[in-house]
Amino acid sequence: MDRAIHRTIIIKNHLLQPNSDQILTTNACLSYSPPELNEVYDFDLKEMRKLLDGHNLQERDWLFNLMVQSKLFNPRKRGEKVYVAPDYNQTMEQQREMTMKRISYLLERNVFEGWLTAKGAEAELRKLALLEVTGIFDHSLAIKIGVHFFLWGGAIQFFGTQRHHEKWLRDTENYVVLGCFAMTELGHGSNVRGIETVTTYDANTGEFIINTPCESAQKYWIGGAANHATHTIVFSQLEINGKNQGVHAFICQIRDAAGNICPNIRIADCGHKIGLNGVDNGRIWFDNVRIPRENLLNSVADVSPDGQYLSSIKDPDQRFAAFMAPLTSGRVIIAGSSVYKAKIGLAIAIRYSLSRRAFSITPNGPEVLLLDYPSHQRRLLPLLAKSYAASCAANYLKMMYVNRTPQSNKTIHVVSSAFKAILTWHNMRTLQECREACGGQGLKTENRVGHLKGEFDVQLTFEGDNNVLMQQVLLSP
Amino acid sequence: MDRAIHRTIIIKNHLLQPNSDQILTTNACLSYSPPELNEVYDFDLKEMRKLLDGHNLQERDWLFNLMVQSKLFNPRKRGEKVYVAPDYNQTMEQQREMTMKRISYLLERNVFEGWLTAKGAEAELRKLALLEVTGIFDHSLAIKIGVHFFLWGGAIQFFGTQRHHEKWLRDTENYVVLGCFAMTELGHGSNVRGIETVTTYDANTGEFIINTPCESAQKYWIGGAANHATHTIVFSQLEINGKNQGVHAFICQIRDAAGNICPNIRIADCGHKIGLNGVDNGRIWFDNVRIPRENLLNSVADVSPDGQYLSSIKDPDQRFAAFMAPLTSGRVIIAGSSVYKAKIGLAIAIRYSLSRRAFSITPNGPEVLLLDYPSHQRRLLPLLAKSYAASCAANYLKMMYVNRTPQSNKTIHVVSSAFKAILTWHNMRTLQECREACGGQGLKTENRVGHLKGEFDVQLTFEGDNNVLMQQVLLSP
Repeated sequence: MDRAIHRTIIIKNHLLQPNSDQILTTNACLSYSPPELNEVYDFDLKEMRKLLDGHNLQERDWLFNLMVQSKLFNPRKRGEKVYVAPDYNQTMEQQREMTMKRISYLLERNVFEGWLTAKGAEAELRKLALLEVTGIFDHSLAIKIGVHFFLWGGAIQFFGTQRHHEKWLRDTENYVVLGCFAMTELGHGSNVRGIETVTTYDANTGEFIINTPCESAQKYWIGGAANHATHTIVFSQLEINGKNQGVHAFICQIRDAAGNICPNIRIADCGHKIGLNGVDNGRIWFDNVRIPRENLLNSVADVSPDGQYLSSIKDPDQRFAAFMAPLTSGRVIIAGSSVYKAKIGLAIAIRYSLSRRAFSITPNGPEVLLLDYPSHQRRLLPLLAKSYAASCAANYLKMMYVNRTPQSNKTIHVVSSAFKAILTWHNMRTLQECREACGGQGLKTENRVGHLKGEFDVQLTFEGDNNVLMQQVLLSP
Repeated sequence: MDRAIHRTIIIKNHLLQPNSDQILTTNACLSYSPPELNEVYDFDLKEMRKLLDGHNLQERDWLFNLMVQSKLFNPRKRGEKVYVAPDYNQTMEQQREMTMKRISYLLERNVFEGWLTAKGAEAELRKLALLEVTGIFDHSLAIKIGVHFFLWGGAIQFFGTQRHHEKWLRDTENYVVLGCFAMTELGHGSNVRGIETVTTYDANTGEFIINTPCESAQKYWIGGAANHATHTIVFSQLEINGKNQGVHAFICQIRDAAGNICPNIRIADCGHKIGLNGVDNGRIWFDNVRIPRENLLNSVADVSPDGQYLSSIKDPDQRFAAFMAPLTSGRVIIAGSSVYKAKIGLAIAIRYSLSRRAFSITPNGPEVLLLDYPSHQRRLLPLLAKSYAASCAANYLKMMYVNRTPQSNKTIHVVSSAFKAILTWHNMRTLQECREACGGQGLKTENRVGHLKGEFDVQLTFEGDNNVLMQQVLLSP
């Protein structure tokens, strides 16, 4: 009841501004102190963190600590805390080089150990936890690592067979090769089945021939292609004896170890973006590039040396579905990552609202904290509540994924599609509200909340446009 | 009816994907051509443009043409058209210098002629039209010009008297002085009445003394302050004989003509932002800076040489309201500008949806244009309709403003507050939808639609936070 009266007074004073000289008196200068010093809370922070992060807390702290120790991550001490953040006042070329330097630093400290060669749910959870930490620092760093390990590496794991695993996985883990993943084309994104790159087989030499038949078939948005990648997975129609067998995946080298682009490969830059400028997205054309027969990732289908098409999955729909499987990990990762960004935005906006004051209730009285305004509470606190729920949902999905079985794949596909769409939409809505709730400070890049919007907008449409994913959820039996 | 059947077939084929080999056949490569070559329309483009731009069409074209002719605006020919756009793959320092170079170029070509010295609605409409054109090219260019002419120049026009007009307006128009507008402080944005900068008067020397008493009183976000401005309007509490007379405006030099910061002035940079990096927002501290008595902008109140406070407006509320008047022009400009950006976003997203295809209805049939999907129509076309309405609303407000009378000021305040909030919210919602409707292409900076989001997000909170403005509308009698 006291609280209701207090609120009524605030609103009354808002409506009836006192018409007196007194309000013009200068307030004592405002002082700022971190809200954790003033606000009382009665729950165990460590327990709460355990609930939200869910797993591998020590490994997460270890990686945060590695970052804090290196100048590559721009550590800055403020009070008792050390903050790390990239310098975004750089050209995309500079940001890309910094991303690679950070990866080298993490590689030397064994961060990526076992990411492709260790097996089991535990190894997978460690990998996911560490990737989440890199994404809290910088989206470009996480995406650059994610493309290499989860798309390139994941394609070899899922589509490849023993010969590919032995040849590529350890070298990928050690960055002896730098991988990318050429699925999307200029003319086809969501509709992967419609891609126009064509691969044929030459039985005389035992080689596949990959070709980009027209401009709309150029590979587009290929992360890593513009500057650094040495190899790529190529998704292509496979035409055997004049018959199209549908989309298949191949390994193709695009640069030598010195960084020179290989013969019959053409590469161009996708240019500056509204975020992720630390990732070198590129365009690739294949001019009848020849690759060994063994470079077909053949877990689902194969071509014999004399050119016969062989597949245990006769139904082309099912075959295509098998090829889409590795994208599930992308959706699981994006869903989790988006919740972390909503949490960052809310932490910043709510902390700000607990130190920033605007307008007084009484003449000469202290100005009111933003979060004491009911309107401000209604803008931020429901999003906070939803973010707790979203955090649990993302963890649930992650556990489902690392404990997957052949029987649960269909469910994971549906749940990951739904969660990816819902949680990324939630994130963008939250970041926008947080940015506005911080006023002008929300626009400063170093305050993160506004900058994260540009960085994570891509999550709404990559690895499946949200609207298309929600239709898939709708259509699933 | 035919149309309904056609739609039903599309939806049916979406739901029941044909289970046959045929769908795997490669489509003929897609071809792209501008939609205006394929689409039939039966209205007069020129008449429509006249309706939407409303006024000063020739001057607008003249200015567009000036831009196209200079390398400073990066003209690039594509087909028969020439496109201009800033290069955003630059550090903020580079972007700021480019903005100043562009202003110099426009200045030499008399673009700003009469912006402060010509009188009447016609001169004002020309100025508004040309400012709109600069904003279509680049938000930083428009804001940098807007701060100089509408905030610095406007304050001198509205708050100053003849002695100020004679001394400053022509020099401002010719960029002999570069002005900025120091109202916002670190601790006070929307609550201007609460600012903490204090000015006192020294009758012995006939000078005012401006002081920043504490950190929260530093001027913040002052466009032009970090690098280029030579002078500023300072908003400050005026304390005369120990009594606070409330917020008043003063002219203060902050740099000499060579760019050196004046004694007792300290300036720092606000740093990198999520947009507007071509504007040098800065922070200013005044360490008991002395300025001549004549630098008080004295249309509302004055201080006599012997230190008596004189004002024809006795009510401090009304006096404060008089000081807020020039911000009306800002809201009129922002409302209009935001509609132009929604139009740019929609033009890009709708043109894209008329050339981009995804998924076929029939095996081997052509893929469907994005805009032929009902879902895509429902995402974009209501926003298009609303943008036409918004365009008319913004023009209505502009005419109201340039034909203002003392009687209409109150109405203009309310209408401009409401339209600024509603149209900027509409713009951000539209740009976000357009960006997602363009998929990955919406993220490329050169495709503008995504980039505009970061550039124009600021409009939601500057020159009055939208939520605060809407409360003002609610409270107005």
